[in-house]
Amino acid sequence: MSFSPLIRQLIDALRILPGVGQKTAQRMALHLLERDRSGGLRLAQALTHALEHVGHCRQCRTLSEEELCPQCADPRRDDSLLCVVQGPMDVFAIEQTGYRGRYFVLKGHLSPLDGLGPEAIGIPELLVRVEQGVFEEVIIATNPTVEGEATAHYIAQTLASSDVTVSRIAHGVPLGGELELVDGGTLSHALAGRRPIDL
Amino acid sequence: MSFSPLIRQLIDALRILPGVGQKTAQRMALHLLERDRSGGLRLAQALTHALEHVGHCRQCRTLSEEELCPQCADPRRDDSLLCVVQGPMDVFAIEQTGYRGRYFVLKGHLSPLDGLGPEAIGIPELLVRVEQGVFEEVIIATNPTVEGEATAHYIAQTLASSDVTVSRIAHGVPLGGELELVDGGTLSHALAGRRPIDL
Repeated sequence: MSFSPLIRQLIDALRILPGVGQKTAQRMALHLLERDRSGGLRLAQALTHALEHVGHCRQCRTLSEEELCPQCADPRRDDSLLCVVQGPMDVFAIEQTGYRGRYFVLKGHLSPLDGLGPEAIGIPELLVRVEQGVFEEVIIATNPTVEGEATAHYIAQTLASSDVTVSRIAHGVPLGGELELVDGGTLSHALAGRRPIDL
Repeated sequence: MSFSPLIRQLIDALRILPGVGQKTAQRMALHLLERDRSGGLRLAQALTHALEHVGHCRQCRTLSEEELCPQCADPRRDDSLLCVVQGPMDVFAIEQTGYRGRYFVLKGHLSPLDGLGPEAIGIPELLVRVEQGVFEEVIIATNPTVEGEATAHYIAQTLASSDVTVSRIAHGVPLGGELELVDGGTLSHALAGRRPIDL
């Protein structure tokens, strides 16, 4: 067996989606063809349109089909705060917290072994943005991974000579769950970062 | 927040895929736009082509862009066996076992509450196929669920007057795993269906 060629091509094409293996791709392809052709057509059209029209925001480098993304275009946001993240998905995550400053979106993290230096991930553009803006604080919200920490450290060093405050999001125990399940590294950070209790 | 409209449309469109919720759809959309635009384009094209050209095999009703699917078109397969399944995915599963007879693909299972009677799932076409063929045995391989069993039972009754043998795939303990983890219903079937050991 032996799906027919067009179905096989569709299955192969679906496998580029993150987290989708052979079996899931088969289920998706047959679902679209067997049960939801109109949905499939909408998907093909939405994908084509998005690929044709979505580029990067001129200011923060997140994905956007306008020259300025909704966050950069909004005049009511706080121009004194700049949050630096690794990707467009992180903008979404930070927005959920109620943060209403500005953003700068890197292209991932520094990874010298993969040839990704400061230029490749957009740090020169970040410096330009900081120089042109009226930011009082740059909040570095790269991932809490080794690479994310290294990237945060590099940016902090690079911005040391400017007159903005550079901060890093706090490491500590996440809300919910139990202390005994938290890894040692996180717990060390949580202890070291302890704060007086406001009464 | 506030993805831009085209990205939001793409995320909504991706959610029609089985097993894909809001968060996965976001990850997929941003992955396609940020990291794999050529793959995204291939996906959109493969999907469009498949939706335009893939229909159903004239004989077995599985998905196929040819009038006859590869299984029906192959002259070397056993014309005395017909395997009845609930969907195209099941053809793939049965093919893996080495079965080399013919197929008939229903449109799911009987579901009177949803208004899906024998006509809706293609049982009249199955009868025509059995009458026109030279089958000696019809193997009913609908799912081992309540609905699948009911559908199998209905088909067996309908074919009772014809001169083909009607069989049902065996129920029993699956290979691998431990007996204590097998549910009671399956174990009852396995006991009732016990067979002498060939030495």
